[in-house]
Order: sequence, then structure tokens, then C-alpha cells
Amino acid sequence: MKNFTSVSDINDVESLVNEAIALKKDPVNLSIGSGKTLGLLFFNPSLRTRLSSQKAAYNLGMNVMTLNIDEDGWKIEFEDGAVMDQGSQEHIKDAVQVISQYCDILGVRTFAGLKNRKDDYQEKVLSSFIAHATIPVISLESATLHPLQSLADLITIKEQGIVWPKVAVSWAPHPRPLPQAVVNSFLEWIMKTDAEVVLTHPHRYELSEKFTRGVTINYNQEEALAGADFVYAKNWSAYESYGQKISEDPAWTITMDKMKLTNHGRFMHCLPVRRNVIATDEVIDNSLVIKQAENRIYAAQIVLKKLLELQHEVAASH
Amino acid sequence: MKNFTSVSDINDVESLVNEAIALKKDPVNLSIGSGKTLGLLFFNPSLRTRLSSQKAAYNLGMNVMTLNIDEDGWKIEFEDGAVMDQGSQEHIKDAVQVISQYCDILGVRTFAGLKNRKDDYQEKVLSSFIAHATIPVISLESATLHPLQSLADLITIKEQGIVWPKVAVSWAPHPRPLPQAVVNSFLEWIMKTDAEVVLTHPHRYELSEKFTRGVTINYNQEEALAGADFVYAKNWSAYESYGQKISEDPAWTITMDKMKLTNHGRFMHCLPVRRNVIATDEVIDNSLVIKQAENRIYAAQIVLKKLLELQHEVAASH
Amino acid sequence: MKNFTSVSDINDVESLVNEAIALKKDPVNLSIGSGKTLGLLFFNPSLRTRLSSQKAAYNLGMNVMTLNIDEDGWKIEFEDGAVMDQGSQEHIKDAVQVISQYCDILGVRTFAGLKNRKDDYQEKVLSSFIAHATIPVISLESATLHPLQSLADLITIKEQGIVWPKVAVSWAPHPRPLPQAVVNSFLEWIMKTDAEVVLTHPHRYELSEKFTRGVTINYNQEEALAGADFVYAKNWSAYESYGQKISEDPAWTITMDKMKLTNHGRFMHCLPVRRNVIATDEVIDNSLVIKQAENRIYAAQIVLKKLLELQHEVAASH
Repeated sequence: MKNFTSVSDINDVESLVNEAIALKKDPVNLSIGSGKTLGLLFFNPSLRTRLSSQKAAYNLGMNVMTLNIDEDGWKIEFEDGAVMDQGSQEHIKDAVQVISQYCDILGVRTFAGLKNRKDDYQEKVLSSFIAHATIPVISLESATLHPLQSLADLITIKEQGIVWPKVAVSWAPHPRPLPQAVVNSFLEWIMKTDAEVVLTHPHRYELSEKFTRGVTINYNQEEALAGADFVYAKNWSAYESYGQKISEDPAWTITMDKMKLTNHGRFMHCLPVRRNVIATDEVIDNSLVIKQAENRIYAAQIVLKKLLELQHEVAASH
Repeated sequence: MKNFTSVSDINDVESLVNEAIALKKDPVNLSIGSGKTLGLLFFNPSLRTRLSSQKAAYNLGMNVMTLNIDEDGWKIEFEDGAVMDQGSQEHIKDAVQVISQYCDILGVRTFAGLKNRKDDYQEKVLSSFIAHATIPVISLESATLHPLQSLADLITIKEQGIVWPKVAVSWAPHPRPLPQAVVNSFLEWIMKTDAEVVLTHPHRYELSEKFTRGVTINYNQEEALAGADFVYAKNWSAYESYGQKISEDPAWTITMDKMKLTNHGRFMHCLPVRRNVIATDEVIDNSLVIKQAENRIYAAQIVLKKLLELQHEVAASH
Repeated sequence: MKNFTSVSDINDVESLVNEAIALKKDPVNLSIGSGKTLGLLFFNPSLRTRLSSQKAAYNLGMNVMTLNIDEDGWKIEFEDGAVMDQGSQEHIKDAVQVISQYCDILGVRTFAGLKNRKDDYQEKVLSSFIAHATIPVISLESATLHPLQSLADLITIKEQGIVWPKVAVSWAPHPRPLPQAVVNSFLEWIMKTDAEVVLTHPHRYELSEKFTRGVTINYNQEEALAGADFVYAKNWSAYESYGQKISEDPAWTITMDKMKLTNHGRFMHCLPVRRNVIATDEVIDNSLVIKQAENRIYAAQIVLKKLLELQHEVAASH
């Protein structure tokens, strides 16, 4: 694992999940990260990610430096060869090379702009970090993926101890168009497990085929939920009519009546959640969402731990 | 002490003050908070509170994570049962449960809105934290109280070594309407000591009776100051005509001439102070305000220390 | 060294540079700063300075507290004797005395306003810190100087191992008027070494004579660059027509053709750099700018180390 930006950075998802669960039992080990620094760069707001990553680093004895990059620092230019005589003040390639020298591992959050699908799906910003960083890069959610969330989700599912679970992933309404990152990422992680996965959403909300290959799609939400052990709800904006909000249909809100169709199914969501829009209060109050958020610590911590161990090995071999 | 949000969380105010003074002599003890994290959440600006709380935590070996919640994180919803299809992005009950998992003690700053007295005096925001947090909550100033400031004030008074002091608390002018939190809180703390307290302010600036029970009120500022050992000045907006600025009368500014009426009285203010509005430069330059600010460290540190000790006891008994 | 705000705080520049280079070989030493706190106050944006100062402090085992002062804290008043009945909320003299109590060393960043030359060149803001702080103050760039940058620059030059180097300092175009701090500071530091220094800029971009005393000035950029071992480029606004942008002439941009006039000269810039405005991509991609930024850590760290050692000595002698 050189970086951690998608499930393809992981050889064995199941062991990673098991290691995270083992770590959770005795999380504080201040020696492994002593003298090491985690940098956290935010192009977008963050609560869970910011705080859980800090906690994970602190549990390992690391120091943390956070930067709201456009706000505390300078306006960043992403175009190669740009003549920088306008608003942008620092080129991403300089910023990343520089920051790489100030920390040992670098986390970056950068949301999809939802204007230009090609830019977003090429992960324009995250790729610049990968290209120019001289240290490992961790995605704290990128334009198309949110791997730490997905790892936390898999930890949470595993903790429920259900063999071959059925997982229903459902679109749900939201007042503003949102990125596809959480759902894309959850699909690529859950498909690495033995779960049976069914995806449900309104017509014209199809995701990129890259993420739905092998996934059963059912446009009837009630059918999709029937017998599910887990119901993962999430809003996303259209992929084809890129970034558009086509529907806000409240019939897709997850209610207790719908949960009754499941196999005592547990509701999941990555948070923040619009209550009584994505799902009703009662559904959320009886859900796994708080545990998912707790497991963000151990998802981040197992990734940091593995990256630190690799650095120790490299250092020892020199 | 489960939380620290008002004087009623403290059994014995005098011993707490004495313990803080003892702590100040040898403040750095990095073992008690090792591996523990203090979360600091700000809905409002902060300088003294932010930095003194950090210093207190560092003195105990704790890590600190700070969050300007509306700015770094998400817009928070406070209404139970709200259909969140408008601007707010995360419900306070989810945010608080989640954050509780990322730290060991949580400090929160939230000022009065000064629009709706009922909301403010029910401590709508702080109560949500208390209701949903699964870890101890420390008020870093709430709508109606500022207990860490008051504890620092009592430490500062105690250090002067005056037996049965007379403390005059005076309203002073200010260009903008301010919350009543500092004065409310100072009154409820100082009334737990052996001080003689007199409160002075213009008519129509009466505070809630809850905080003035047993306090002598004198509408004549000069009479109130006569013979005082300490003069605590503060602006607040009206409680009856809630949140309004009724007066900006410069006759209430504390001057050296007024200080001459006192018993070599020491001037006190919580800072930030509008110089030559609340009090003249000369009064402030010969005051206890810098010591009060210094004692914010030890007020925070003794509270953190006691909460950590309780956590260690609970852990040991399991 | 009581504070670190200009080269005149340093007795022996050459040894300081050598000590920084020695430190760089084995930078992590967590004991010297254990239990100590570095405060970092920003009136202006910062990336390199913020992160490199944090890293330097962490390498020494210090804690760090950062504050964007006008944003996280209160609006600051700088006028002595001001009647603070307008926008400003806290006087600098109170803020500095208070903050001095919360940390052991204080770093401050404050840019030139470029409106009032007298205010800027009297270092109105930094002087207030020096006047009121009770702990050492480090400039993180002030109105007229940037000593940590210059120290990092000298470390970078020294690492190239060139005896009696020729250093050409060139003005370069920029879309907005910038302070003179970096160039002023570089000149006063480089003049303490055995380098031969030549300064080149368009007419009417003359710097204060205070900083150019003894420096050769050549208004012909190509002549100035001829035979240079190092080319330090920087934009600044006019000093005489204070703060104005008189030229944006692209003929002053540093190109590969111009670099060919040098003695295999290495390009230097403090960053952030406007690519293809200050210098072309190719010049920057083959330059020392990333090493300069790396050396910001060791510049900050050697200064922090020396200040901490002085504090330990004072403590030991009591």
C-alpha cells in the first residue's frame, strides 16, 4: 500500500477489516507514530473525517497539522503550464511537493465540483497530489470515492456478525445535488465481501458502470429492501445528466414501514444526514450511523498504522 | 462532577479554588492526560478560552482537537423532528453523539443569540450537548453562564489574600448589546464565597432574579464602589427588554476618580475590554485583568484534571 | 537572542547556518521542548510558514497552538489611547500580554498594509508584540522583513557548497503589488555572508537605502545575471511610490535563456510563485525552491531550539 485512495490499494479487504476490529479493543499505542506527523488538508468542510483522523493519529502518538487550504493558505492553480497572472497564487505541484516535506503522511479532502464529469472522474485534484507527493497520500474523500468511510462501513457490518448478509443500497432524496463518492466507494468495497448486494434508485440515477458491474439493480425500492440485513441509504446526483438533481421524490425516504420489509435490517448512512428527508427520525434513531462514525477512527488508524509500519521497514532496511 | 457548566456542578467552591492555586505552582504533569483528547467546539469566536483551554490540556499531556463548527464542519440543526430540507446539514443530536466518540472531554462555546430570551435561558444549544454527549461537557461560555471565567476570577480574588472582601459589580457602557453570561456567572460564583457583593447598573438593566437573589443592588454607581476591594466591570444588554441596548451612558465608564472611592480596589474585567469605554486606559493598566486571563489556564486545568481523575477511577473499577 | 525578528538578533550568521545544517541530519529530539508550547498567530495567510513552524516545534517535542487572530478571535485595536467604541474589540496590548501567558514562544505573521509606509516601516504591529510580550517573539514575516525565509535561503545556498558565490537578486513581474519584506530581508542576511551580491530591478523600484547599502545595483537584468551562481527572483511593489505597481513588464520574467547567462546558476524563490509570470515552468522545475521550503523547517527549528535552551538556562540559574 503506497497510498490509500481506493479499495484497489488493499490486497485483502477481509484481513484489513479484522485488523481494524482487533485494533479497536486496545487502540492507544503511542510509540509507533512518535515523532511522526499527519498533515490534513481540506478543500471542503469536514467534521467526522477531520476529528476521527486526528483521533486515529493521536492514538498512534502522531502529531497532526490541519490546513483549510484555500482559507488559511493560498488559492491553488491546477492547470499545468498556466500563466498565473490571475487569481490563483500557488501551483498545486509546488504546494504538494512542499507540504510533503513537512509531514510523514498526508490526508486530502476534495469534493467533486459536479460541473465537469471528466475532471471529477479523472480525480483531477487527488491525482495531482499522488503525482507530486513524496509521501503516502490518504484520501479523506475525493471527487468519486470515500474509502475511509467504506472501510468503516465494512467494519460496522462485520461487527454485526451476519454471515452472507443481504445489503440493499438505496438512493434517497436530498434538497441539493451531491457527489457520487460515498455510494461508488461503498459498492466497490462491499463487492469485495461475501455480501449479496442490491442497488435501488429512480430511473436516470444510474451510476457509472465502473461501480455497478456485477451489482443487481432494482428500480423498485420495496422489492430491493425485502429481506435485507442492511439498508445503506445515500443521496447522489445524476451521473448521466451529470451533477443534476432530477428528483426529490419523498416516496424514496426510508421509513419504518419500509424497514419492516427487511430482515430486521439495520439502517446505515455515512452522515451528515438530513433527518426526515433521507430517512425518518425513528429510522435514524434505531440505526448503525453512530457506530459507523465511531469506526471511522479505526478505519483511519489501521491505514495510518500500516503506512507507518511500511516507513519503519524502509527505514530499518537502509 | 459529571459536566462543568455552572457553579452547581461544584460541591465545594473554596477547595476547588485552593486546588487550582496549588496546581499553578507546578502545572506541568504530562502523565494524567496521556492518550486522552480534549475536543473544543466553537460556535463563536474565542481567544483566551481557546488558548487557555489548549494550554491546560497540554499541561496535562492531553491532545487537543479544535473545530469552528459552522465553518470547518456543517450547518447544525437544533429543532427536534425538523424536516431538514433547508439550509441545515447535520442535526445536533447526531453531531454530538459522533463527536463524543472522538474525544474524552468536550468543551463547547455558544453565545446567546439575544433574540429569544426563552431559548437563551433554557440554554438550547448547551442542553443539546448535555443531552446527547456520552462524555463530560465543559462550558466554554454558554448563553447565560461562563463558569471557567468565574472560577478564574475567584482564583484571582483569592490570590489577593483579602479576608471578607467587598466586591462591587458594575455595569459599564459598550457600543453593542452583549450577553449576560459573564455577570450572571460571576454573581453565582462569588455568592458562594464570603465576599460582600454589591451590584450597580442603570435602571432597566436588572438581571434575572435567579442570579441576583441575595445580592445588594444600588443604582448609584459611586455609592456601590465606595470602600470596595474589587471592582468587577462588565457590560450586558437588558434582560427585561431582552437583548436591547438601552444606554451607552459614558458616565458609567470606570475612571481613576471612581477607583479613588474604593478601598485601594483592584479593577477586574474578563476581557476583551473596550478601552476608554468600559474603563479608562489608566484603570485597565493598573488592574487584575492580565492575571484573570492567566488564571483561565488553571481554572480549565483543575476542571480537566478532576474529570480525568474520575475517568481513571471508573476505568480502574471495571 | 531575546527575539527573532531580523538578522540583527543573530551574532554569528555563519554558525547559525551551520548549526541548522547539522540539526537537519537528525532532527527529531523530543525532550528539549517537552511541556513547552509554541503559539502561532496569523493576521495573514500562510502555508509554508504555518506548517514548517509546526513541524519544527513537533521535532522538538513542543505543543503548538495556532490562531487566525481576526477570524477565530477578536478584531484588534492598535492605536494607543483609542476610545474603542467602534469595530475593534480588543487592544493589542491586552491580547499580547494575555497570549504571552499561554505559550512559551510566540510566532506572529503580519504583512505590510502597503498603504502607509511609515506605519509599515516602523513595524507597527510587530513592535506592539515586542513591546508587550513577556516571552520571545519570532517573526513569521512582518511588514518589512521575513527572517526565517532568509535563514532558510542561506542554509540552501550553503548546502550547494560554492565558495564566494555570486548572487543576483532580481525583481520580477506580478499581477498585484507585494510587500518588500522578502527582498529586504534576503539582502540583509546575504550581506552578512561572503557572497558577491548584485540587485537588479526596473527604475522606480528602488528599495529603502537601509537595505541596499553596499549592494551593487544594475538596472540591466541580463548584465546582473551574467555569471551568477544563484538567481533569487522576487516581486515587490515600489518603495518610493509606496505600495504601487509601476510595471508588470514580462521582459523581467526569468526564462531559461536568461539562466544561460549565469554560471550554471540555481534559481531561487520563497514561494508561493506565480508560474510563467515570475519565472517560466522550466526555470522553476529545475530550481532550488523546494529545498528552500524544506529548509524552512530547520531555520525555524534552530531558532526555537536556541530560544528553548536560553529558557532552560534561565530556569536552571534560578
